[in-house]
Amino acid sequence: MKTGIIGTGLIGGSIALKLKEKNFTNFVYGIDQNEENLNKALELNIIDEKSDFEDGIRKADLIIVAIPVDSAKKILPDILDLINENQVVMDVGSTKSGIVNAIKNHPKRKRFVAFHPMWGTENSGPQAATTESFTGKAAVICNSEESDKNALATVEQLIQHLEMHPIYMQADAHDVHTAYISHISHITSYALANTVLEKEREEDRIFQLASSGFSSTVRLAKSHPEMWVPIFRQNKENVLDVLNEHISQLRKFKSALEKENFDYLEELIVNANKIRGILDK
Amino acid sequence: MKTGIIGTGLIGGSIALKLKEKNFTNFVYGIDQNEENLNKALELNIIDEKSDFEDGIRKADLIIVAIPVDSAKKILPDILDLINENQVVMDVGSTKSGIVNAIKNHPKRKRFVAFHPMWGTENSGPQAATTESFTGKAAVICNSEESDKNALATVEQLIQHLEMHPIYMQADAHDVHTAYISHISHITSYALANTVLEKEREEDRIFQLASSGFSSTVRLAKSHPEMWVPIFRQNKENVLDVLNEHISQLRKFKSALEKENFDYLEELIVNANKIRGILDK
Repeated sequence: MKTGIIGTGLIGGSIALKLKEKNFTNFVYGIDQNEENLNKALELNIIDEKSDFEDGIRKADLIIVAIPVDSAKKILPDILDLINENQVVMDVGSTKSGIVNAIKNHPKRKRFVAFHPMWGTENSGPQAATTESFTGKAAVICNSEESDKNALATVEQLIQHLEMHPIYMQADAHDVHTAYISHISHITSYALANTVLEKEREEDRIFQLASSGFSSTVRLAKSHPEMWVPIFRQNKENVLDVLNEHISQLRKFKSALEKENFDYLEELIVNANKIRGILDK
Repeated sequence: MKTGIIGTGLIGGSIALKLKEKNFTNFVYGIDQNEENLNKALELNIIDEKSDFEDGIRKADLIIVAIPVDSAKKILPDILDLINENQVVMDVGSTKSGIVNAIKNHPKRKRFVAFHPMWGTENSGPQAATTESFTGKAAVICNSEESDKNALATVEQLIQHLEMHPIYMQADAHDVHTAYISHISHITSYALANTVLEKEREEDRIFQLASSGFSSTVRLAKSHPEMWVPIFRQNKENVLDVLNEHISQLRKFKSALEKENFDYLEELIVNANKIRGILDK
């Protein structure tokens, strides 16, 4: 199978590397407005050939759109215009309602599969791509009933080769769940970084004292705005809803401390500890 | 050297294991009110002998207090009452002003070294103890001028055997820095867990969808209240100060989203990204 990767960054690059390793694809066309990324991807054998937009799409059996969610939403109709009835198009975006709605009435809608692999790192670019990726994680397919069965089957095989397990969900439910489980973590982490940068003027002390706990909590704050601003824009309502709840949860800690109500503080912590049972299932 | 470990949990246990491996100590007395932990520590060769409070302290050259910070503060004067002028006592607590002030005027103050290793995990108990610990992390010694030179030298040798690097600081400065770099991370993580538990009623979805990003941000929320309530109690003022700043940083994200001011959102994220340069020095 020939694959076209639009966006040769962390996710597109990691998918390409893994699918090549597993012989799911034998040739990868790389499409990227960023010439530097494209050259790097070629150098790293992530792609086999640099390609322009139209040409790459016409030649590939499977087209994977791995660019920020607003750009993906914008160019997807153009991609569908270019393909024939045997080609398959998928995205990898962290928000799904916007993209699914954008092509709802497109005559080739059924050749598209809305996909979101629950894996990523705080790094970006083809140099961050790795075959040590995706394994054991959830692969969400949204609105599968809107895709052709054979298009769906192609993506399900891809999921198997990525060593992920498929989960089926409606796009709006997906966007609610990811606001809880992924998007709010990023906001928390960004805000924590800004807090420490604001309060801790002695940068050397941060560096010297930062424990593994801090590094772990603040890791996501390294994630790039090019990817995350569009996600927050597209999932604004859900993210705001969770953010308001998060601020109110933090106020409970504040209140417990201010009132020196340490029994209540303990209650809050005991409740939070329940996440262990859920995550370590 | 014979060592007495008061509190045979994660930190006390990990120190004992590592110091035995490095032949810094050849015999460890274990002191713990929790009989189950004590038996487990013996079984795991963390300690060589179970001991009662007075007996263990009298027999050890070096006494390491590795219990929650409020209990440590409370029993430290009793420990100092029991030792002679050749023994050394150290703690490992995450807050330092309280303990240093509690023994300020004790006649044997100089035999005590206030210590805080910047390492830990979200797990607890002797079964969580590991020799894969401490390496490369900072070891803070507070108010070193209040300790005898030879007591200080013993702890500095211990730091070397733990493969840590010493940092010297005043106790009040320590408590300000750790509020920024460690304590607030825990509150954020607890509050994030509570947010998700509150909003995401479908527990299976949390489990299925939780990405590595979420797990990383929420990891500290597994930490036990027995350890953390006393830390927050002792460092209340500093923690509240940072918590207020953190809530105000989160409100900036909220405001940017509500007003759809995505340029401002990008600014906030770009600023947070600076943490990469500081952590990855």
